[in-house]
Amino acid sequence: MQIKGKAYRTIWFENNIVKIIDQTKLPHQFIIKELKTVEDSINAIKSMEVRGAPLIGATAAYGLVLSILEKNDQTFLKDSSEGLIASRPTAINLKWAIDRMMKKISGTNSNEILKVAIDEAKKIVEEDIDFCKNIGLNGLKIIEEIAKKKKDTVNILTHCNAGWLATIDWGTATSPIYHAYKKGIKIHVWADETRPRNQGANLTSYELNEEGIPNTIIADNTGGILMQRGQVDLCIVGTDRTLSNGDVCNKIGTYLKALAAKDNNVPFYVALPSSTIDWNITDHKKIPIEERNSDELSHIEGLDKDNNLQKILIYPQKSKAMNLAFDVTPAKYVTGLITEKGVCEASEKGLKRLFK
Amino acid sequence: MQIKGKAYRTIWFENNIVKIIDQTKLPHQFIIKELKTVEDSINAIKSMEVRGAPLIGATAAYGLVLSILEKNDQTFLKDSSEGLIASRPTAINLKWAIDRMMKKISGTNSNEILKVAIDEAKKIVEEDIDFCKNIGLNGLKIIEEIAKKKKDTVNILTHCNAGWLATIDWGTATSPIYHAYKKGIKIHVWADETRPRNQGANLTSYELNEEGIPNTIIADNTGGILMQRGQVDLCIVGTDRTLSNGDVCNKIGTYLKALAAKDNNVPFYVALPSSTIDWNITDHKKIPIEERNSDELSHIEGLDKDNNLQKILIYPQKSKAMNLAFDVTPAKYVTGLITEKGVCEASEKGLKRLFK
Repeated sequence: MQIKGKAYRTIWFENNIVKIIDQTKLPHQFIIKELKTVEDSINAIKSMEVRGAPLIGATAAYGLVLSILEKNDQTFLKDSSEGLIASRPTAINLKWAIDRMMKKISGTNSNEILKVAIDEAKKIVEEDIDFCKNIGLNGLKIIEEIAKKKKDTVNILTHCNAGWLATIDWGTATSPIYHAYKKGIKIHVWADETRPRNQGANLTSYELNEEGIPNTIIADNTGGILMQRGQVDLCIVGTDRTLSNGDVCNKIGTYLKALAAKDNNVPFYVALPSSTIDWNITDHKKIPIEERNSDELSHIEGLDKDNNLQKILIYPQKSKAMNLAFDVTPAKYVTGLITEKGVCEASEKGLKRLFK
Repeated sequence: MQIKGKAYRTIWFENNIVKIIDQTKLPHQFIIKELKTVEDSINAIKSMEVRGAPLIGATAAYGLVLSILEKNDQTFLKDSSEGLIASRPTAINLKWAIDRMMKKISGTNSNEILKVAIDEAKKIVEEDIDFCKNIGLNGLKIIEEIAKKKKDTVNILTHCNAGWLATIDWGTATSPIYHAYKKGIKIHVWADETRPRNQGANLTSYELNEEGIPNTIIADNTGGILMQRGQVDLCIVGTDRTLSNGDVCNKIGTYLKALAAKDNNVPFYVALPSSTIDWNITDHKKIPIEERNSDELSHIEGLDKDNNLQKILIYPQKSKAMNLAFDVTPAKYVTGLITEKGVCEASEKGLKRLFK
């Protein structure tokens, strides 16, 4: 999609270097960063320079490519893959991408391993774009249906950023929105700010602005009353891990919006490529929920009156804070899952109909 | 309650001047501000230098005293009362306090009016302290009951600041907490940050720190998963307007926590003095919900690395934001109302049993 009128992907491979958009600097600065080692990749994931389940999967895949470029050695490769998987615990795509890469390159002789790894990483990237596009086309039908009935602007609420910046292109939750907009359907997006890292404001509103899609940032507290007042026609969010029973682990706060949607009969959809499905865990209590540094809550960055970036402390100096990054929305609150293969019920039956 | 070891109230009258703690400067600066005119009072309420339903009621009462001191004139007094009522639309206490003051002073001759007004404003203040103390004693029983069963630290979640800083002393939601702490019950408070103005962090965590009560600030998004995990034993919040049917209008986001509490069988109590009951409106859709300046979302103030206060822009420069200040929690999600006269069901029957 576009930034300042120019088409970008979130990650690309050029002259044996991985290039990413440093998402910790958005929206105030647009900086392309180079990753040259597997350690660079791990740090980019940990520090959330890249984030979003599909994008960290792709970054991990390219991390293995960089590992092979650094040192074509089986032990180093194994250590690299473990380091990448451990870089963030909750999104399943990380493990999915590494497993896929390792399966592909295992047994490949050392002369060919680099080429095989690059080809597979590229394939993961191209597939993700394709999946996200299809998620958009499948979700578009839901929006078209609402637009037909309402005959007025369709108001869509989303939480965090499951936009193209969370994937390679198109996004998951935003892909139906981009497709609807391109078809001329009148759309307005409520972007949840998404504390503590404000991805809704910093990334979702930013990328929608760049594509010209009307949107309004709201505090995470606001979605409930908007639904009570009938100002939300549809919620679409992403997911970092979807259990086979349809439970959805996504950015902290998603669950609260799902409860409000249920209470107000607002359809609540989750958009995902199949790479975020965890077919193994059946109890959501077994999902490792990442706890991040509390500085992400107590400090925040922005532009001062002279347009200089400043990081400030916003909490009382003596206060403690706690920073859980994800929560779980039980399947019963999810109207449906929008996948690359179609829309299904958030249940084992629904998912198996499409994927097994 | 205490700040730096010294006992304060949030508002006091001294040498014909009203003194307040400027709450827009907390937690970074502790500044006592003087209000000398009715206009000063209106501005203090509008700009939220004073906030919290009971405290803005008291400020409005003293605003009328200042009006009489400025110009002992019936027309000016009437204009003052209208200006004060209009300063913020949602909390009912503002109107309640002005109506009570005007009723008391109407027909009083101009020689006596100042003394009568001062006495009545003092009475409102002393009554609020008394009510808040009794709310604490009534709510204490609920905490004691949980502590008895749990035999471990009681985790209480609160939203926004319904602390002593929102009243004159003790607070509403915090009063049971202060009373439980003074009785030696082990307490830990989850303080919702409460975007956009962060009263949970800036005021609730701050005042709990000053009293030595363990507390942790969390993003507004976090309460849901904490309840799913059994890490919240009880929610207590305040209210800006309670309808006679038990519906509760409180700081934006309260509704979402009530939904999560219901979904996880966590008791959800609302603490209030009877001055916040609206006996007239029966449909919550008729409550005027204040929409404040979106700058409160897009800009935030804090301390830079040199400990200087800085206000920074945290949103993309092109983005719009929307800032609704309150939402409504339907009575069915409220376990009970903790009032100065006892705890009752959130219903007309419950409220009438105590108050009519």
